Amino acid sequence: MDKQWQEIDLFAKQAIKEAGRKIIDSFDEVLKIQTKSNVNDLVTNMDKQIEKFFVEKIALEYPDHRVLGEEGYGDNVNDMKGTVWIIDPIDGTMNFVHQQRNFAVSIGIFHEGEGMLGYIYDVVADELYHAGKGNGAYLNDKKLPALNDVPLEEAIMSLNATWLVPNRKVDHEIFVSLVHRVRGTRSYGSAAIELAYIAAGRLDGYITMRLSPWDFAGGKVLIEEVGGLVTDLNGNELSMVNNSPVFAGNRAVHERVLNEYLKK
Amino acid sequence: MDKQWQEIDLFAKQAIKEAGRKIIDSFDEVLKIQTKSNVNDLVTNMDKQIEKFFVEKIALEYPDHRVLGEEGYGDNVNDMKGTVWIIDPIDGTMNFVHQQRNFAVSIGIFHEGEGMLGYIYDVVADELYHAGKGNGAYLNDKKLPALNDVPLEEAIMSLNATWLVPNRKVDHEIFVSLVHRVRGTRSYGSAAIELAYIAAGRLDGYITMRLSPWDFAGGKVLIEEVGGLVTDLNGNELSMVNNSPVFAGNRAVHERVLNEYLKK
Repeated sequence: MDKQWQEIDLFAKQAIKEAGRKIIDSFDEVLKIQTKSNVNDLVTNMDKQIEKFFVEKIALEYPDHRVLGEEGYGDNVNDMKGTVWIIDPIDGTMNFVHQQRNFAVSIGIFHEGEGMLGYIYDVVADELYHAGKGNGAYLNDKKLPALNDVPLEEAIMSLNATWLVPNRKVDHEIFVSLVHRVRGTRSYGSAAIELAYIAAGRLDGYITMRLSPWDFAGGKVLIEEVGGLVTDLNGNELSMVNNSPVFAGNRAVHERVLNEYLKK
Repeated sequence: MDKQWQEIDLFAKQAIKEAGRKIIDSFDEVLKIQTKSNVNDLVTNMDKQIEKFFVEKIALEYPDHRVLGEEGYGDNVNDMKGTVWIIDPIDGTMNFVHQQRNFAVSIGIFHEGEGMLGYIYDVVADELYHAGKGNGAYLNDKKLPALNDVPLEEAIMSLNATWLVPNRKVDHEIFVSLVHRVRGTRSYGSAAIELAYIAAGRLDGYITMRLSPWDFAGGKVLIEEVGGLVTDLNGNELSMVNNSPVFAGNRAVHERVLNEYLKK
């Protein structure tokens, strides 16, 4: 990474940590309000507040960068020209409300369509996953090793119950034999956390039907840096401006699930 | 709690923390061995080693207590006479191997069939959930509030993919409309962690088909102390010496799922 990107990396990390502290500080308020009925409003406010924090900070430091954010405080981004920050201020909002854990800040920074920097910050665990193109991926200060090619029979897949019962997005029957075949399944309720877990080798695959670019932008940079794949359900490259089903995993699991289940 | 049980409580907590340190110390070995093929042997050894640690410690301090443990180093327990420790040294062994997190030490201490003390220790998060009969439940030093009656439409249920596809234990069709109805589903891969999450209000219900007493003994004491229920799938009391399907939740979720889904 050249000096300019090193500076952006440092700036992004500091902003993410600061956002994390703001979120932790909001817990008292969440708990106070949880017995009332408007906890969902509060959370929407928190999502918005954190996104605004990023948008304003980036505009001051890098006025020519654009921001694509879940809450809409950024720019109206329809292409990937120049430098674009793709931000989910709180991924896993339901977990944030119910659990005050298992949510994350997720950021991918793209330049001319190429993923340059990726971040997923599991705020409560204080685990910052970060990657720079060509520089490898890290969990806090520890370099993450390249992903092992795990056989499907030993794989742990993340797969939410929503896709295993009849639903509007996918024929749930394709997952029946996959569930029987893998060693185990999990579901954490935050795309960013599941993608970070794949980057760290804690999960071997993740399939979901309904993600937006801010859900997977950071994770994509991270996972590709450890040799994994993040694609749509046909194995095609994801668009960074459209919603899509997403399939992520290490190479062996990705190839076998794609050929033996998803493409059939 | 009288003085005798306060002493047992203190003894149990110290033993659990010591076991936690032994498990953390084993991580280097797990990671070292993970690239070889015998990682499963190592883990079996770790499970055994920790159970042996508890069995020997308890025998020295409380020679008249009996131990029912997953690995079989305890006593041959067929009834609940006297004082019985029901121990799972590492609940969530698959997570222990793949993730080095999301596993727990689980202990329930019963006297003449009554749950007196319950512990679930999420080792990596350093979260010790503990409860004494009539004394409430705690997460580390913080008292856990009584569980709210969460409406089913706002509930987060833990439900593993295994039970949502055709399987030998349960008609998976009964879960289809339940999955559609609740706000969300999760699956963490450790019964002890899911039960602790229910006690802490992070999950509202948990249904699984295949647990042993050591999987639910600690969680049962904890959840009952915050006003929740842990039963079989018909709402009946669990036996502490037999395997059983288990359904845990706050009172509102338990009643509605039982009447509208499980008993139908």
